[in-house]
Amino acid sequence: MNLELIEKPTLILNPARAQANLERMAAKARRQAIRFRPHFKTHQSTEIGSWFRQAGVQAITVSSVDMAQYFAEAGWTDILIAFSTNWRQIREINDLANRIHLELLVESTETVHFLQEHLAAAVDAWIKVDVGAHRTGIPVQAHARICELAAQMRGSRLRFRGLLTHAGQTYHAGSPPTIVEIFQQSLESLTQAQAALHQAGFLETELSYGDTPSCTLVENWTGLNEVRPGNFIFYDMMQRYLGVCAEEDIAVAVACPVVAKHIDENIHRIVLYGGAVHLSKEMVEVAGGPAYGAVAPLQADGWGPILPGSRLTSLSQEHGLAQVTPEQFDQIQIGDLLAVVPVHSCLTVDLYRQYLTTEGQVIEIAG
Amino acid sequence: MNLELIEKPTLILNPARAQANLERMAAKARRQAIRFRPHFKTHQSTEIGSWFRQAGVQAITVSSVDMAQYFAEAGWTDILIAFSTNWRQIREINDLANRIHLELLVESTETVHFLQEHLAAAVDAWIKVDVGAHRTGIPVQAHARICELAAQMRGSRLRFRGLLTHAGQTYHAGSPPTIVEIFQQSLESLTQAQAALHQAGFLETELSYGDTPSCTLVENWTGLNEVRPGNFIFYDMMQRYLGVCAEEDIAVAVACPVVAKHIDENIHRIVLYGGAVHLSKEMVEVAGGPAYGAVAPLQADGWGPILPGSRLTSLSQEHGLAQVTPEQFDQIQIGDLLAVVPVHSCLTVDLYRQYLTTEGQVIEIAG
Repeated sequence: MNLELIEKPTLILNPARAQANLERMAAKARRQAIRFRPHFKTHQSTEIGSWFRQAGVQAITVSSVDMAQYFAEAGWTDILIAFSTNWRQIREINDLANRIHLELLVESTETVHFLQEHLAAAVDAWIKVDVGAHRTGIPVQAHARICELAAQMRGSRLRFRGLLTHAGQTYHAGSPPTIVEIFQQSLESLTQAQAALHQAGFLETELSYGDTPSCTLVENWTGLNEVRPGNFIFYDMMQRYLGVCAEEDIAVAVACPVVAKHIDENIHRIVLYGGAVHLSKEMVEVAGGPAYGAVAPLQADGWGPILPGSRLTSLSQEHGLAQVTPEQFDQIQIGDLLAVVPVHSCLTVDLYRQYLTTEGQVIEIAG
Repeated sequence: MNLELIEKPTLILNPARAQANLERMAAKARRQAIRFRPHFKTHQSTEIGSWFRQAGVQAITVSSVDMAQYFAEAGWTDILIAFSTNWRQIREINDLANRIHLELLVESTETVHFLQEHLAAAVDAWIKVDVGAHRTGIPVQAHARICELAAQMRGSRLRFRGLLTHAGQTYHAGSPPTIVEIFQQSLESLTQAQAALHQAGFLETELSYGDTPSCTLVENWTGLNEVRPGNFIFYDMMQRYLGVCAEEDIAVAVACPVVAKHIDENIHRIVLYGGAVHLSKEMVEVAGGPAYGAVAPLQADGWGPILPGSRLTSLSQEHGLAQVTPEQFDQIQIGDLLAVVPVHSCLTVDLYRQYLTTEGQVIEIAG
């Protein structure tokens, strides 16, 4: 890429890294003959979607009806909307259900009833269960409630497919072994719920599992029918801090102009044109304080190793403040570009309309 | 507005409230004959900009070269870019400087030198000084450095105009009296720097002051030449928690569909379609924990009073979790719309392309 052409905060993609991340996850699924239904909310791009197709992917996950429409337009015909069904978009849901194989989430008798009343075509339905993230879903231990909901779907256009979960609590795990442990516990409780459904006459309950930390760190997925990681295509500093990926796996960064430098109470700070509207305010607590990203040098072929110890200590609407060492400070000049490696790549990407690849190509992002 | 047409997270604007906020601030400036140069980064809309013009505003503040271009296109001819000058956009800066009265910020000898070498037309320059926010600027007590920078501009296309500051530390003040105290201290230190410049032969140094908390709570701005608040046009929950505005002053909210309801360990939670990509991850700590927004009922004529004690306790990419009381829980149904009153209106608005007013009108936002 031509750094001279970069004037303002610009989303940079290293396609070789993303493709290596993709191939690693796809190969793991192939080896185990488990359906790989990657979550496309991370990249939101038809072109990057085509890389998945080349890797053998046929079914995808999205998190909104709008994204389902976008990828259906791009030719995807098997789409799971992994978000509690939004009644207010029933018109769009029916339009999709008439065109493609559509899968929805349900977690309440009200929503099952609503869909039975309003669906214009058959869809597959997954019961969302909560394995400990406490975000959405029926508690996985509530076997009676789960069986009742499955029974409610009998003989309707809503075909009960299985149990789906996202073990989001892995993002609060302190270490890789804890993440693996969460996976094992979740799988065990999912299998127990599956057995309860079997006893209730549901003999073909599938299990669908999400989250990049588990899917990256766990080698053996036996027992699952489907995995739905999304973030792994790019990873980010949060995954790095969790011990899920190496720094060299992170495939996106934001090129930010240096606009000022300050030494204040012996703290060396670089002021970047790159704030909350370019990075998102996602933050992780690290040794030393909050981190809104890390800083790396930027060259024509991509970003280099993260400056050791550097972190973005605060973000306002357009400004980012990076704390660096005195030696790093001396090497950075006003007018330079630095790469900010983001904390949460999904939220950062969502702020842009396009990627600039390290090879100088532009890739569009869903509007 | 027609609530039936709202299917997904939608930015709602109450124009009467915004216009009342505008008129109150404009009147305060008029009474004191102090230049009102409002910051347009909050609304980013030519139509809302026209309300300011009707209120007598002729000069505006923006925080990027792109916003300056957008508002110059809309006919604004006196624009301050209140952001440390980005060298990499010198071409666009020169284009603007040739068309309108442009004002820039400088805070280093390097940037002054760069602009003297590259400016194609005259611009006014403000020295950015730091009164305690520790974000950008020369410490206001560093009189020698300030005078040197002013001297460096003598006789060049960069016309030294005055000292500019943003007392961002008011956002961390615990109470309204502390905010007023910060203002008084800042004004005192600005006046001392102004006196030092006077002694050095700069007889007409102006003082420009920002931040909504100070400008809202302080009645007497004597000593300043210009004020640049931005957020006040909408306010938000952060200003409410700070004690800067009343709940009834807040002029924007996000309409969010209810997609699920859960009682988990006796905590009553509403699951909203409305996450980090619809609200931003801005957060404030309140009694009880983090708040990413508050929840209010939504009617055709706008949102009602905030549900007492309600708060968004967590946000993921598309989900928001609202904690409510058992009584509120029983009154909210899946498929309903709720209004989320955001923590930081500037960041929330930046995520949208349009406002829907409570009167049903659509107002475009800069792309």
